Amino acid sequence: VEHKRVVELRNLLESQAWHQLRHALAEQHPADVAELLGHMGGEGEAVIFRLLGRHRGEVFAYLGPQHQRRLLQETEPRLLARIIGQMTSDDRTRILEELPPPVAHALLGRLPPSEMKRGLVLLGYPENTAGRYMNPDYVALRPDMTVAQALAHIRQVGRRADTLNVVYVVEKDGRLVEDVHLGSLVLADPGAQVTDVVDPGLVSLLDETPREEVLRFFEKYDRVALPVTDKDGHMLGIITVDDVLDVAEEEATKDIHMMGGVEALDAPYVQVDLLSMIRKRAGWLSALFLGEMLTASAMGYYEAEIARAVVLALFVPLIISSGGNSGSQAASLVIRALALNELTLKDWMRVFRRELLSGVALGTALGAIGFGRIVIWQGLHFTDYGPHYLSVALTVWFSLIGVVSFGTLAGSMLPFLLRSLGFDPATSSAPFVATLVDVTGLVIYFQVAALLLRGLIL
Amino acid sequence: VEHKRVVELRNLLESQAWHQLRHALAEQHPADVAELLGHMGGEGEAVIFRLLGRHRGEVFAYLGPQHQRRLLQETEPRLLARIIGQMTSDDRTRILEELPPPVAHALLGRLPPSEMKRGLVLLGYPENTAGRYMNPDYVALRPDMTVAQALAHIRQVGRRADTLNVVYVVEKDGRLVEDVHLGSLVLADPGAQVTDVVDPGLVSLLDETPREEVLRFFEKYDRVALPVTDKDGHMLGIITVDDVLDVAEEEATKDIHMMGGVEALDAPYVQVDLLSMIRKRAGWLSALFLGEMLTASAMGYYEAEIARAVVLALFVPLIISSGGNSGSQAASLVIRALALNELTLKDWMRVFRRELLSGVALGTALGAIGFGRIVIWQGLHFTDYGPHYLSVALTVWFSLIGVVSFGTLAGSMLPFLLRSLGFDPATSSAPFVATLVDVTGLVIYFQVAALLLRGLIL
Repeated sequence: VEHKRVVELRNLLESQAWHQLRHALAEQHPADVAELLGHMGGEGEAVIFRLLGRHRGEVFAYLGPQHQRRLLQETEPRLLARIIGQMTSDDRTRILEELPPPVAHALLGRLPPSEMKRGLVLLGYPENTAGRYMNPDYVALRPDMTVAQALAHIRQVGRRADTLNVVYVVEKDGRLVEDVHLGSLVLADPGAQVTDVVDPGLVSLLDETPREEVLRFFEKYDRVALPVTDKDGHMLGIITVDDVLDVAEEEATKDIHMMGGVEALDAPYVQVDLLSMIRKRAGWLSALFLGEMLTASAMGYYEAEIARAVVLALFVPLIISSGGNSGSQAASLVIRALALNELTLKDWMRVFRRELLSGVALGTALGAIGFGRIVIWQGLHFTDYGPHYLSVALTVWFSLIGVVSFGTLAGSMLPFLLRSLGFDPATSSAPFVATLVDVTGLVIYFQVAALLLRGLIL
Repeated sequence: VEHKRVVELRNLLESQAWHQLRHALAEQHPADVAELLGHMGGEGEAVIFRLLGRHRGEVFAYLGPQHQRRLLQETEPRLLARIIGQMTSDDRTRILEELPPPVAHALLGRLPPSEMKRGLVLLGYPENTAGRYMNPDYVALRPDMTVAQALAHIRQVGRRADTLNVVYVVEKDGRLVEDVHLGSLVLADPGAQVTDVVDPGLVSLLDETPREEVLRFFEKYDRVALPVTDKDGHMLGIITVDDVLDVAEEEATKDIHMMGGVEALDAPYVQVDLLSMIRKRAGWLSALFLGEMLTASAMGYYEAEIARAVVLALFVPLIISSGGNSGSQAASLVIRALALNELTLKDWMRVFRRELLSGVALGTALGAIGFGRIVIWQGLHFTDYGPHYLSVALTVWFSLIGVVSFGTLAGSMLPFLLRSLGFDPATSSAPFVATLVDVTGLVIYFQVAALLLRGLIL
């Protein structure tokens, strides 16, 4: 479908049918026009952008971050200021914060004074807080208005608002009293007071609420918009759910990338050039490699044992990978539960107990499988693990109990530790836990071997 | 804050101040009451539930899945039917689909006939499709209505609708014409026709649209509600964004759990009992363990080489973990990009080329670090890798190029393969890729060793 639309637009473009092209563009949803622009490539882009007229700002806001960045560099300042001027306050903030401050200020300087001031206020809030991403264009009602007066007021000022789905009852001094769904107003008796129409349970955000917390509020309360106030309850702006849906996806992407041991990309996979991609991955990969070098040291420490009993070396990958796998299971469960506020820091002891029990149970089960594998292979003469194969099999079993338990505990406790130190729990990614557990796993394995095999083959 | 509210409610409960308790409950947002119930424990729960009156259904819908399941078992059928009757159609479907079919049908049988029929229709759609989760309670307008008539109609029928934020212009035969924001109607000239008020770019979902796709539509078009139609364009119901936000979080949780190599839990971490938790984890862990047993076979195959050159064993964990780490990086990037539709199946060749280049570059870099480590440790007499330490170091370098490239390719191509076979790409979790790469990594390492060290120490 999209391809057909691109072809149609390209035809209109090539036949220079400006009028028809302008008409075709106006009928599309801005998100679709943005997607089309992404497919078009440079040539027609500038023309289409000019033909978009007052929809330009909206379409621009739907473009991908890399695309926006390129256009910001290529477009002449006067047109750029016009585009920025057509955007909603929150979309505008999201663009301006990506620019070098002098460029952002130059662009703001081309806006009407009131808009400029407002842009500066929003950019003044710390990154990733409700204040930074709110939209100050909401409809405010006074508590003494009747429903009929309220609807008349909405008709008067509503066009400038980001949303009309929810309107806000605000005192003269700016303090937020209640929020009201437009639907509730329409259904209410026109003579009633707006304060009698309010939906129960006002929920509001503080300007300094971090964006993960904003996401949790929307999830919990199922609202389409939430008001933002300062500490004294003065209404500052609103945040709408469509922006929060994007936040949810970005947070999940960040966590999934971290879980895989890679620095979060700030753009879609295909839009990141090869060199930045390699650079983003080399950092973590090298750090993990440096950590893993300790395994070479650990193995070196046990070199004499390995030389005496080569059979021990055969199970090294099996043992350490089991620790890594159980650790990455635990880490992914706990990281996600912390992200969703299902767990808080004070739950760590409870999780510790659960994970210890799980680890011992899982390690015992895997150990039994490993024990069986060695005994059966020996019995069927697939491999010869020597006269003391039973002790070797027991070594593997006991080691697995230790390694899997340690892996499970490391994977579940590291996210708590990181959060309590103020870091993102997702930093304790699976590869990071695996690296930690690999080194410890080797020590556990060779210590168990020393205990069980001393005098036999060691 | 929550704790204080729980104490207050408990006090009211213990002093049997029913009237005040009922009043206190009515003032809370249903999501908060649900959270309070979660903290209260069994004793007061039943009493509070009875005092909730007509808010019961709403509060019930906000409870966690395990809590709901318990209440469904404990509550007497008559009260249960009343609770189910108070819920919105989409919330009700979500409860009923979790119940054994006979129980669900018995509950539906206690509803008014029209509601029962409607419940059966919704449950008739396949799981995880738009049809199953839509709400048939929307406001329909006729194309020939004026704005004033439309608003009058909304006042008449609006109370039953799931949302009034968007209303729908529907032909007499049920075909959807346009959607209109209530805000646009309120702002419009009362004498205008509703078809002149429509917001540009109607977007609608088919009843069979899978829920991941529904999520992408909401993300792309920034809507608060989307209409669902059949193939012929007949309007069936609506899906609202608050439900989609939950879908976004569930999908991300599923992917994050799979990335960690654990079957997705169907309830929050703390609500899953220990035994189910262990069972959920044992499955994948055992499967991975069985896969990893191949490393013991591979190591066994090279046992003679290890016995002759124990130094080779020292680097086994380092080499195979590097392959696993690079694989899990690639997997997490590609799995997420596929989930977000940033990549589609036809991009596989492009990704293959990128990842091959990345893999070779990253492997060369890691190999250089490994080479340096061996040469420096030897030079500083930290360890003695023997007279042919340079060849050993080169073996490690070249092996890392091979292993990291293979890991990167396996991690990036497996998600494509899984999707093309109709599986969830996230199944190619980091531990799964690591297991695959561990076995292959050993073969690559020992083959490179055979090439470079034959005649020297092998």
